[in-house]
Amino acid sequence: MAIKGIETKEAFAKLVEKTKAKSGYKDPIGFGVARVDRGQLTPSKILQASFPVVNWNENFGSAAVFVAALDEAGIEVDFSGSEFVCDVKKKFVKNAMAAFEPFLEEAMGDAHKNVQVIQHLDFIAQNEGLEKDFRLVFLFEDAAPKSVEAVYLKLYALSTGKAPLRSLNLSGAFGVLENVAWSMNVPIELAWLRENEIEMKLDGTFPVIEGVDKFPRFLQHVIPADNTRILDASKVRMGAQLAAGTTVMPGASYINFNAGTTGPVMVEGRISSSAIVGAGSDVGGGASILGVLSGTNGNPVSIGKNTLLGANSVTGIPLGDGCIVDAGIAILEGTKVSISSAQMEKIKEVNPEFEYVLGEETYVFKGLDLAGFHGLHFRQDSITGALKVFRSQREVVLNSELH
Amino acid sequence: MAIKGIETKEAFAKLVEKTKAKSGYKDPIGFGVARVDRGQLTPSKILQASFPVVNWNENFGSAAVFVAALDEAGIEVDFSGSEFVCDVKKKFVKNAMAAFEPFLEEAMGDAHKNVQVIQHLDFIAQNEGLEKDFRLVFLFEDAAPKSVEAVYLKLYALSTGKAPLRSLNLSGAFGVLENVAWSMNVPIELAWLRENEIEMKLDGTFPVIEGVDKFPRFLQHVIPADNTRILDASKVRMGAQLAAGTTVMPGASYINFNAGTTGPVMVEGRISSSAIVGAGSDVGGGASILGVLSGTNGNPVSIGKNTLLGANSVTGIPLGDGCIVDAGIAILEGTKVSISSAQMEKIKEVNPEFEYVLGEETYVFKGLDLAGFHGLHFRQDSITGALKVFRSQREVVLNSELH
Amino acid sequence: MAIKGIETKEAFAKLVEKTKAKSGYKDPIGFGVARVDRGQLTPSKILQASFPVVNWNENFGSAAVFVAALDEAGIEVDFSGSEFVCDVKKKFVKNAMAAFEPFLEEAMGDAHKNVQVIQHLDFIAQNEGLEKDFRLVFLFEDAAPKSVEAVYLKLYALSTGKAPLRSLNLSGAFGVLENVAWSMNVPIELAWLRENEIEMKLDGTFPVIEGVDKFPRFLQHVIPADNTRILDASKVRMGAQLAAGTTVMPGASYINFNAGTTGPVMVEGRISSSAIVGAGSDVGGGASILGVLSGTNGNPVSIGKNTLLGANSVTGIPLGDGCIVDAGIAILEGTKVSISSAQMEKIKEVNPEFEYVLGEETYVFKGLDLAGFHGLHFRQDSITGALKVFRSQREVVLNSELH
Repeated sequence: MAIKGIETKEAFAKLVEKTKAKSGYKDPIGFGVARVDRGQLTPSKILQASFPVVNWNENFGSAAVFVAALDEAGIEVDFSGSEFVCDVKKKFVKNAMAAFEPFLEEAMGDAHKNVQVIQHLDFIAQNEGLEKDFRLVFLFEDAAPKSVEAVYLKLYALSTGKAPLRSLNLSGAFGVLENVAWSMNVPIELAWLRENEIEMKLDGTFPVIEGVDKFPRFLQHVIPADNTRILDASKVRMGAQLAAGTTVMPGASYINFNAGTTGPVMVEGRISSSAIVGAGSDVGGGASILGVLSGTNGNPVSIGKNTLLGANSVTGIPLGDGCIVDAGIAILEGTKVSISSAQMEKIKEVNPEFEYVLGEETYVFKGLDLAGFHGLHFRQDSITGALKVFRSQREVVLNSELH
Repeated sequence: MAIKGIETKEAFAKLVEKTKAKSGYKDPIGFGVARVDRGQLTPSKILQASFPVVNWNENFGSAAVFVAALDEAGIEVDFSGSEFVCDVKKKFVKNAMAAFEPFLEEAMGDAHKNVQVIQHLDFIAQNEGLEKDFRLVFLFEDAAPKSVEAVYLKLYALSTGKAPLRSLNLSGAFGVLENVAWSMNVPIELAWLRENEIEMKLDGTFPVIEGVDKFPRFLQHVIPADNTRILDASKVRMGAQLAAGTTVMPGASYINFNAGTTGPVMVEGRISSSAIVGAGSDVGGGASILGVLSGTNGNPVSIGKNTLLGANSVTGIPLGDGCIVDAGIAILEGTKVSISSAQMEKIKEVNPEFEYVLGEETYVFKGLDLAGFHGLHFRQDSITGALKVFRSQREVVLNSELH
Repeated sequence: MAIKGIETKEAFAKLVEKTKAKSGYKDPIGFGVARVDRGQLTPSKILQASFPVVNWNENFGSAAVFVAALDEAGIEVDFSGSEFVCDVKKKFVKNAMAAFEPFLEEAMGDAHKNVQVIQHLDFIAQNEGLEKDFRLVFLFEDAAPKSVEAVYLKLYALSTGKAPLRSLNLSGAFGVLENVAWSMNVPIELAWLRENEIEMKLDGTFPVIEGVDKFPRFLQHVIPADNTRILDASKVRMGAQLAAGTTVMPGASYINFNAGTTGPVMVEGRISSSAIVGAGSDVGGGASILGVLSGTNGNPVSIGKNTLLGANSVTGIPLGDGCIVDAGIAILEGTKVSISSAQMEKIKEVNPEFEYVLGEETYVFKGLDLAGFHGLHFRQDSITGALKVFRSQREVVLNSELH
């Protein structure tokens, strides 16, 4: 059977409605078609999935069309699991083309991107053929991903900014992904390299390997905003999120997956997995923001707006807006810092919820006690060696509705 | 019209003389022919300029020939502005070839490089044709650059060592340059990537992107000295200057544009924009030298000769020769350090201009007070936590003419 | 003459026996066939040697066959020097093929790799021809390497884990290797780039240079274990050794030649030349382990098992198992640290050889005094600024046979 006769947008809408009315139908939280790279030795292993378009809590009509196009091609989508993945075959593409008929002409630029995907698949089907290169994936709930395609779709959702950082379940992603050698965007099985090492070394055709990892690089899959700069592609892992205007310098910087920025940030240091940095902040050269796997007792670190992490500083606690951690200082959850009575008063001005013992000349806090407060300046007194906190000189804009 | 009959070096000299005698003529401070890369979507945008030869306060005869060759090709050079840029067309090349006639045979290797450029342009003109790929640029004064070609010519002047660091006006360069994706030396417009993303992702032809930046990398344009090593090309931005014998390791190092070394230096840390390091010095692993945009109040930092910046140290003040900043120490303009009376005397031996209060047991200085002095050793007393300065064990060679 | 009639494994064994019985014969400590890259301007200069198979104190039968095959081809191996290198010619390959006859069929996968090398050389000889591209090298003693081939063979022995770190004589290796530009695995002479700069810049064919160094990158030559990850190829130099399960992140990390790991290690910092890190340890983001050339007075640093070097810490002394160096702390040979009497007792529990003065309330040690002890936790007291050592919370497994 096949989808036919969809000549108007009304007919298209009816097809969508009819499909969604079927028993058990669910809108996917994410879906998309991916071109996949397979193992050179073990083609059943999928090593990478490239999504031309990512749908994330959107375009439910296209999702319904895809379900209908599969159905007519003899593939029944299983809505009962957390994800469904299948090959993209010629019949499916023909059906989807038929369903998208009323949109074919206007599908270009930013309009109807899923239609553009189907159009180009149709072109490929008519030329080289689709083979086993393309896969369609639906996610119905945010469970631990089971397939490479599902992991990649989630990484895309994070890296394109469609899903907020830390919002997705990536449990077990490391187990799902294969560790591969990356050569010019292409993943290569290490076992295949071993099997062909003698010939390739003698022939002078051993490939250029840029890295060996389970994850690809952000820039292999994502096109950043016009004013975003990533000077060295190796510095940002796929699954990171960079708000427009962020700059990532090539010194000691690194942004792991599920970490990044929510506004323009100058990044010259490390943003570990789960860490998030706010607009106007500055992660100085060699500064480290610890991640849930590296010294924060599982508490993810958020850095507010307009905060400065000095060169080679280390931050293991969340910080609010307008803070400063001086160059070379390490502030972890257990780090003891003292604050004078006068400074405590100034700090309270921008942190109404900050509580302290009145009358104490100075008071010693642990780093964790100060988590999330605004306008803190962490310094080491270079005469006594003591770590102290002052009200920083950086502006803190209080939310007048809240305070 | 056309240049003709230049058969001897005397005739060439006369042509130069005649051209320079014209009213308003000025010797350019810099000039050169560049091959340019243009926008894939917007060909009027120049994304990169590659200069085979950079002329900087030199080769004024060739400059005059270029002006004459343009003139005869119907293009009048405007000497009234700070820069003049135009297309390189066949007529210009023919004229320049005619004028360079007496030098054609001996133009090879290091001899007559501008003649070699014209010879090869002539070859290209007769084969593929010149199209809009080549541009000729003259700089008549060191004003804020207005064109991509002018910015690149200045970056080349810095990176080839023809102009000293910090000597050129680069105001507004960031505004002139386009932010692009770099793929195998080729700049690609981000908007073009977006427009072609669906097709390229499905076809498996999405380009390998090494970085996204306004600037290219140093090694895309500059061939370093035989004993200079840059282990990772991403670590040195175009516009940096590296004296022969400098080594840049791949750990946490980075050298920004308008920054670098004036002698052989081991670089394992960051040399921020505007910072300069002298011969025999060592920028330890992860050490940071702050730039005018990162914590020095706009004062550029120069580091003298034979000075050691320890691993993960941070320096925000200028240092003289033979200094040591211990591993992990941060010395900024406001950092308080104490010096004992005995050490002050020893420091004065290599810094006759150093003044201190006699009789004081120890004295506290701010970092900025010590800017530029020789033979200082910055240490943290690990028993008291105090930052102290001693006379370093490293040799300081005093300039006997000055002292 | 030629090798003939080796039809059984017994005949092969006899050939080996006969060859080894010759006066002066020595088993090589290492040998192998390499494909070499030669200088573009000076083809007599070898710029790189790629070994499909490395033999290190093994496969002495194959070595004898190679010696015999050379002999019959008119090349006499000189056993009196520390190394012997010669071209691989068609006659040698034919002889070796004849000698390996009984193994040709079973040579595949991991079996008989030297036979596979000869088989493929035979294939090349019959097709493109061998030219001057292949070289055979024998090392008879571990002296300072004299040839590029010998340096590479030693780097391979280290990087494949066949020779322990620090076990090989690499004196003068820097003098033997040429400094070259690396482009897609191919070494290019800098002088050749200079000679062709004008044409290549104007033609748009200037090569992509990934780095300029005497050494190639580890991943150009070595295929890591399945569970080893190197996120950025520039971070590990050829000659480094990475035990299976090691991960090298792309931030501030770097592993130099003759340095590395002996078990699974998370590397986010620098392992300088001569430094070794044990299983289960963690080199935090930006942490520096100093090398013999960078602040350890020539004493190489070994880090034990299950030890944590905090972010941006600096270690210049050997450490035992289960130690912690807190984030941002620098421990060098001369760094003074204090230990309380109570902590000294606890430290002695896991270090029976640790000696201290009984009865002292606290005692001050220099870093070097504590070299190699287990279970130490180096901390800076953030109230007093003093560096102190405690018994760490990390487990130390004492070797019951020794204690």
